[in-house]
Amino acid sequence: MLFNLFIIDTGHHEASWRLPGSQPLAHIDVDYHERLARIAEAAKFDSVFLADSPVLWNNPGRRPSGRLEPITLLTALARATQRIGLIATASTSYNDPYNLARRFASLDHISGGRAGWNIVTTAGDDAARNFGLEAQPAHAERYERAAEFVEVSRKLWDSWEDDAIVADADSGVHALEDRVHEIDHAGRFFRVRGPLNLPRAPQGHPVLVQAGSSQDGRDFAARYAEAVFTAQQTLAEGQAFYADLKRRAAAAGRDPDGVKILPGIVPVLGSTEAEARELEAELDRLIVPEHARRQLARLLRVEPEQLPLDAELPASLPAEDEIEGAKSRYTLVVELARRERLTVRQLIGRLGGGRGHRTFAGTPEQVADTIEYWGAHGAADGFNVMPAVLPSGLKLFAEHVAPILRRRGLMRTEYEGTTLRDHYGLARPASQYAAEPALART
Amino acid sequence: MLFNLFIIDTGHHEASWRLPGSQPLAHIDVDYHERLARIAEAAKFDSVFLADSPVLWNNPGRRPSGRLEPITLLTALARATQRIGLIATASTSYNDPYNLARRFASLDHISGGRAGWNIVTTAGDDAARNFGLEAQPAHAERYERAAEFVEVSRKLWDSWEDDAIVADADSGVHALEDRVHEIDHAGRFFRVRGPLNLPRAPQGHPVLVQAGSSQDGRDFAARYAEAVFTAQQTLAEGQAFYADLKRRAAAAGRDPDGVKILPGIVPVLGSTEAEARELEAELDRLIVPEHARRQLARLLRVEPEQLPLDAELPASLPAEDEIEGAKSRYTLVVELARRERLTVRQLIGRLGGGRGHRTFAGTPEQVADTIEYWGAHGAADGFNVMPAVLPSGLKLFAEHVAPILRRRGLMRTEYEGTTLRDHYGLARPASQYAAEPALART
Repeated sequence: MLFNLFIIDTGHHEASWRLPGSQPLAHIDVDYHERLARIAEAAKFDSVFLADSPVLWNNPGRRPSGRLEPITLLTALARATQRIGLIATASTSYNDPYNLARRFASLDHISGGRAGWNIVTTAGDDAARNFGLEAQPAHAERYERAAEFVEVSRKLWDSWEDDAIVADADSGVHALEDRVHEIDHAGRFFRVRGPLNLPRAPQGHPVLVQAGSSQDGRDFAARYAEAVFTAQQTLAEGQAFYADLKRRAAAAGRDPDGVKILPGIVPVLGSTEAEARELEAELDRLIVPEHARRQLARLLRVEPEQLPLDAELPASLPAEDEIEGAKSRYTLVVELARRERLTVRQLIGRLGGGRGHRTFAGTPEQVADTIEYWGAHGAADGFNVMPAVLPSGLKLFAEHVAPILRRRGLMRTEYEGTTLRDHYGLARPASQYAAEPALART
Repeated sequence: MLFNLFIIDTGHHEASWRLPGSQPLAHIDVDYHERLARIAEAAKFDSVFLADSPVLWNNPGRRPSGRLEPITLLTALARATQRIGLIATASTSYNDPYNLARRFASLDHISGGRAGWNIVTTAGDDAARNFGLEAQPAHAERYERAAEFVEVSRKLWDSWEDDAIVADADSGVHALEDRVHEIDHAGRFFRVRGPLNLPRAPQGHPVLVQAGSSQDGRDFAARYAEAVFTAQQTLAEGQAFYADLKRRAAAAGRDPDGVKILPGIVPVLGSTEAEARELEAELDRLIVPEHARRQLARLLRVEPEQLPLDAELPASLPAEDEIEGAKSRYTLVVELARRERLTVRQLIGRLGGGRGHRTFAGTPEQVADTIEYWGAHGAADGFNVMPAVLPSGLKLFAEHVAPILRRRGLMRTEYEGTTLRDHYGLARPASQYAAEPALART
């Protein structure tokens, strides 16, 4: 199975920075991130991953806020590690394909073929207001732009054929000009001439990752994604999502095995189950409910006062189609609250722990069991591991869960390949401009 | 005096990659760049610098083409060095201020305060065509956008006050919300709400560098630049430029000493003058004149056939005002050719050696002499060192020129500070939002 470490400063639990011994400036500390990446690499994780949005996400009063830009930070991590994959989030709504394709190709060169791109369309009006807009583009429009953005990027990544550079000092010919292509893209959102100002990257292009689970998001993933991060609360939901996405990939003419599905898991580890539950309870006690309620109210499009802490969610809330923001997250939160009849306070605890991802408090054995069970029952090709507390949760996973997984043959003992594509079992794409056999052109 | 190493793959001479023992894939090799940065740091250079443009600059047949994106590459170099400054070029015409300000602040955090931004407006229609335009915006318009871009960036860099983060675990307050500011910028080119999604950087903001010497460029530099890279062929021209820019800075209400001026020098070093001249001649012999003539023709807006190799430039060429591209470069090239009555072939040799910067072939003593002379006679606060051949030209400079400069008190023996601002003798800017004394607000 595949294992991705999702790093977020002091951990995925929003109160993790308040624990004794935490590093409250972790979010802007490159040494800290290097230590985490090295631990993950020593445990033979496939990849590390950094989320991102071009906006100040949280209320900065509440938890560490504002982070180092992921491609930049992963470049530093690339030099501190040798094998582990490096996946950065970047927005298709608030970037230009030429610049972004260049930066990902640079990371792929610098890391020797370990780059991945988590493609997001960036929900929310707040982000839009940092880019000259009053409100975010509609959901469907964001995904249409994302699709064209990826098409342009792939053309740019392919614009130098693999054998373009000959570096013949005698004749003075550095590259064969007919193997470096203008792409002449002209579409609804972009007109880009190319070629890219960088020779082809070691992986051809970065591994393409996607993480939205709305209908638009699934269709997008089926067409383009090579790995999918997803939030699934129950095995049944996980199985349904897994089957649906593999089916859609096949319907789009792709090998379903070329789309790896990694649900999130927020392990809260203790040497006994009771110890794990005590840590979970301590973390939930440290959440400041007023802050959390404001954030929940914003997601649900209601006023904070409409959410009394000890009552369930109001009966009337907007339907998913009315939401132009993060549709799948909205539905996940509402369904979680309704299904388990959670009060606002309980819901806040669940969301504060892993922002809607599945929290699992238990012993290393129990965590390994659930990972194995989901893998064996058609719900996961691997897991997006999101420790509630960092670095301690990662260390516990590496020291106590990983050895169990290795004994069961579910986690590698040594890297076999050198690139992220090698680790994920994904083929290296050929350049779309290399259709004609090389001989015919020389 | 200040010393900046301008790195460009195998060296500034376009034929440097053809020399025996060169590394023709240097331009995409991070290890190679790390070695250069370490040599420069050991020699106590103030900074290293990478040029850039969001377009494939050269004909890729001719010389190593397409490079790693500079901020990404410098992030790797930041982890391989401890003190040396790291200056990246980025375009104000083809970026968004929110994203670019974030990336430079990230580099400044990751490097511990060593980031610099060479602000360029990016001349040329080819770049425009990678961003949905048919032709570049007019010269004055590009500079107007650049000015607003810098204003927005400075607001974003200032949006977190230095003392915003308190990280009080007991109360659960991570940052003081009233010290994190929306910037609410609304101008001709940009509407940006802010705040930046990253706490304030070690230097406040990166050192602002500028390199265009047109009238618009000089006005821009006088208002914003803290360092200026410039191409000056003769001492008299260098003195005139230096005096003019310092005067403009004073007229803009700034301390002229807060604008450091670094002309480019392309040292071609030999242990004797004859040996240096032999290397220069060998390099010029390796230029492929047809390639170079095409590039010259494009700059001059004529057809290659109008430039016979063994004749001088045509008498009638456009005036600088008619050029919407790189105005100062255009004028420099035309004036150089006219002043020295160069044939096209000779001009190509001069440009191939350092793209219009001053080439100086000689012994280490002679190179040190000219550096000292320009510094003592009001033409330079330091030099932008552009070795014709890398890494050998840098090694020769470090081993043979730097010791002479140190003996003369012109180059440091040890770093005194830790940031690029320390090295350049520039003050750390206060946040523009921190006007009120902190006490009044608590």
